[in-house]
Amino acid sequence: MSDIEFRFRHTMMPVASIDRSAEFYTRLLGMQVVRLRREPDRGGRNIAYIGYGDEGTHPVLELIEGTGNHEETWSGHIAIAVSDLPTLVEKLKAADVKFAKPMTKPETGTNTYLAIIVDPDGNQIELNQRKGGIYS
Amino acid sequence: MSDIEFRFRHTMMPVASIDRSAEFYTRLLGMQVVRLRREPDRGGRNIAYIGYGDEGTHPVLELIEGTGNHEETWSGHIAIAVSDLPTLVEKLKAADVKFAKPMTKPETGTNTYLAIIVDPDGNQIELNQRKGGIYS
Repeated sequence: MSDIEFRFRHTMMPVASIDRSAEFYTRLLGMQVVRLRREPDRGGRNIAYIGYGDEGTHPVLELIEGTGNHEETWSGHIAIAVSDLPTLVEKLKAADVKFAKPMTKPETGTNTYLAIIVDPDGNQIELNQRKGGIYS
Repeated sequence: MSDIEFRFRHTMMPVASIDRSAEFYTRLLGMQVVRLRREPDRGGRNIAYIGYGDEGTHPVLELIEGTGNHEETWSGHIAIAVSDLPTLVEKLKAADVKFAKPMTKPETGTNTYLAIIVDPDGNQIELNQRKGGIYS
């Protein structure tokens, strides 16, 4: 694994309202809103990245709107930035790791490759290869 | 808030077996086991901290054994290191923030103060003031 680099990128937390959560975390816990986006493919869901510094160097919280109040089973996850996802995916497949989402090459956005694997306890782990490298 | 410093410290993930998870994350995702401990107060539960570097500077995953396979509702959480927890707690109380665990001063361990608050969606956020500061 020595040739592949990794970095924790975000922890996803489902929330009912981006505005309500952003206000809470910025006013009370010293965070900043780093980035806001909408995901048209998911019903225009709003997503906010908040934390204590730039996403390229600091881990952030990914707040996904419309998933809060724990009406459904928790679907939070960890995201790990990886320098060479195709090579890693070959290794993971050889180890019979389960994929919640097979590796894709998104046509838009900031990721060259994206995949979601399932760890031994059923936790989903997002793996992404960023166009600008693991510190971007 | 400018006088209080913060840092994401860990994301907790419940797991069924520390050994199984540590093997998975070190062998396949390039992590290292940073620290192992047992918590006698919680039935001798094993806890492992794993990640991509020293806990004092890098965020880690906290794997708590005996909570995996999602038999119960997810109880993962984010932990934030804070430079001055008593001051922050006063501010949080004034803002009517709910506490899952009021601030305590543990007699043993590496934290001077510890508290767990509940965010607007019910997510638990651990706040700790480390004896050695937020980078320790």
